[in-house]
Amino acid sequence: MADGRNGNNNFDTVALSEDGRSLVIIDQTLLPGELKRIELSDQRDIREAIYKLKVRGAPAIGVAAAIGLYLAALEISESAEQEDEFFRRLGEAKRYLQESRPTAVNLKWALDRMYARASAEKGTGVPAVVSAMRREAETIRNEDVEVCRRIGENGLTLLKKGQGILTHCNAGRLACVRYGTATAPIYLGQERGYAFRVFADETRPLLQGARLTSYELSEAGVDVTLICDNMASSVMSRGWIDAVITGCDRVAANGDTANKIGTSGVAILADHYGIPFYIAAPSSTIDFETATGRGIVIEERSGDEIKKMWYKEPMAPEAVKTYNPAFDVTDASLISGIITEYGVLRPPYDVSLRKLREKIEAEKKRKGENL
Amino acid sequence: MADGRNGNNNFDTVALSEDGRSLVIIDQTLLPGELKRIELSDQRDIREAIYKLKVRGAPAIGVAAAIGLYLAALEISESAEQEDEFFRRLGEAKRYLQESRPTAVNLKWALDRMYARASAEKGTGVPAVVSAMRREAETIRNEDVEVCRRIGENGLTLLKKGQGILTHCNAGRLACVRYGTATAPIYLGQERGYAFRVFADETRPLLQGARLTSYELSEAGVDVTLICDNMASSVMSRGWIDAVITGCDRVAANGDTANKIGTSGVAILADHYGIPFYIAAPSSTIDFETATGRGIVIEERSGDEIKKMWYKEPMAPEAVKTYNPAFDVTDASLISGIITEYGVLRPPYDVSLRKLREKIEAEKKRKGENL
Repeated sequence: MADGRNGNNNFDTVALSEDGRSLVIIDQTLLPGELKRIELSDQRDIREAIYKLKVRGAPAIGVAAAIGLYLAALEISESAEQEDEFFRRLGEAKRYLQESRPTAVNLKWALDRMYARASAEKGTGVPAVVSAMRREAETIRNEDVEVCRRIGENGLTLLKKGQGILTHCNAGRLACVRYGTATAPIYLGQERGYAFRVFADETRPLLQGARLTSYELSEAGVDVTLICDNMASSVMSRGWIDAVITGCDRVAANGDTANKIGTSGVAILADHYGIPFYIAAPSSTIDFETATGRGIVIEERSGDEIKKMWYKEPMAPEAVKTYNPAFDVTDASLISGIITEYGVLRPPYDVSLRKLREKIEAEKKRKGENL
Repeated sequence: MADGRNGNNNFDTVALSEDGRSLVIIDQTLLPGELKRIELSDQRDIREAIYKLKVRGAPAIGVAAAIGLYLAALEISESAEQEDEFFRRLGEAKRYLQESRPTAVNLKWALDRMYARASAEKGTGVPAVVSAMRREAETIRNEDVEVCRRIGENGLTLLKKGQGILTHCNAGRLACVRYGTATAPIYLGQERGYAFRVFADETRPLLQGARLTSYELSEAGVDVTLICDNMASSVMSRGWIDAVITGCDRVAANGDTANKIGTSGVAILADHYGIPFYIAAPSSTIDFETATGRGIVIEERSGDEIKKMWYKEPMAPEAVKTYNPAFDVTDASLISGIITEYGVLRPPYDVSLRKLREKIEAEKKRKGENL
């Protein structure tokens, strides 16, 4: 076990240990009470860490799974010298990890990519396959860092020193490897003396803003103030907010954006007070196949999250009905800019997103031709 | 002690017992877990019930204090036959009750009115003074019921059968004697088969919507759905809300309205979605001496309410800053109508409120002339 709180604010949420034999993560179930890094090498432990949300956030889960499958390959290689047996057991390990959170898109994506990389090396011998997998896991990890860093750079062009920034939920480094998405401009600004004043919505019902965002920002020395969700209008009316930046779960082809419940309300308030509202969106979250926000299905979760979770005693009558949507859709007309790793997109988003798609496809084609 | 839950949904929050010798209240500190009526006759117990929020809400506190001072007078009269001694001890009892919540305006108002009534009867003998005080306490109580009932009637003219209504915090009967203010049209509608679908914001940080509003409405058989504050935009976007009705703490002369934190945000969302936003305001909450909302001082409360209260363990870092305003001000331009016991006021509010003031003053003058 790695030691906990050590004063190093530049922690990575997910990493491969220096000796290359274990996954190092921050156990997020202990936050905000305790910052503890744990090292996991056993497949059972890695699977459990994902299942029990010790590591969470789509990008972070993807990277953890990629490192996890590399570590499985390493272990298998110690007793399986023949490629046939190695790949059979690697397939089992892949399925085993994937079952930890079957609906997590990034988990499947990362495991598929790792397995495809291994398959492409078939015939070069088990040690070479394992080496290629380690490189691929590191690539996936580095890509996440780089995407977030570029989002940070692009977002920073929209901000000025000393500004007040409101964010909602946690699109922070605890959901990624480093920087986060919505928080990336804040961290880069912090490194460069921007002295932002950040306000974090607590984000009911699961309080990611209180537990994670206010935690990670204050750990990094950022001036952060925690508020209840219903106080956003009050702080905006006082002139304390110059920009809102949130993350996103999915962007439709017209710019409509699904994100954590409450985001659409914050966007409407920002519009009312004349404050720009930005979303930080890695291009991987853009869903070009979904025309508008109407096509995005919203997950509804148990009302116990509202009525019981976190509380010493039930804070609402047992029998009372609840409505507990996990996400809402922010209308494209309320979004001042979409901050991607390629730059800041501006309305009309059907046009700017189409151009981005063409750019990404041209890039893919060029890379494909160069291979 | 009166028995608890008894299936009678038409409970009064505050009452004088049938034998006229005790104050009967619902112990609100036990809600939503348990509905328990308690009977209090000792001054010490009555004072503690107010101090410990067993009875809460400005109108309810005022009525409880009025009944409390009558009960004090009754007790004093049993050993003080001379008026001089009676009034000396009544003054002590008044101060004793008032200290229970020194900043509660309605508490002071009710005690002053009771004492003035007693003073007006000086010279008629102690028993007659005590009788007059009982009648005055009952008048104060009945006036609250009547004001709420008239707000309900006036509010109901704005609504149609089967409509969806959103409310915030608790301006319900648990804050008054009966009906409540914002809930009065809902209760009257319920009696008349309007079949409203009500959505109650939980209202962080103190969760009055979850603990009290969803409780009292579901007890009365109203179709009520509890949501987190940040879900209001989502339910409005689905077309489920036809009107928003909230209570208010103070209305300025131009219609700007202070109410529980989060109200201004709900008003902005309603405006965005084209939903009428009403406040229910007994004329006693209209502050004609304050020109606009800028003149209303907003109480800031301890951040522990956000970080710790209700939770098993701290849900935010101990050291993180918080901002915890108890109220916010809704701009008059966002208010579709102000529902008072005299009727529904419409914009421009500087004009309609001035007319109401003239009406109230003329009424007072007429009553004064008739005395």
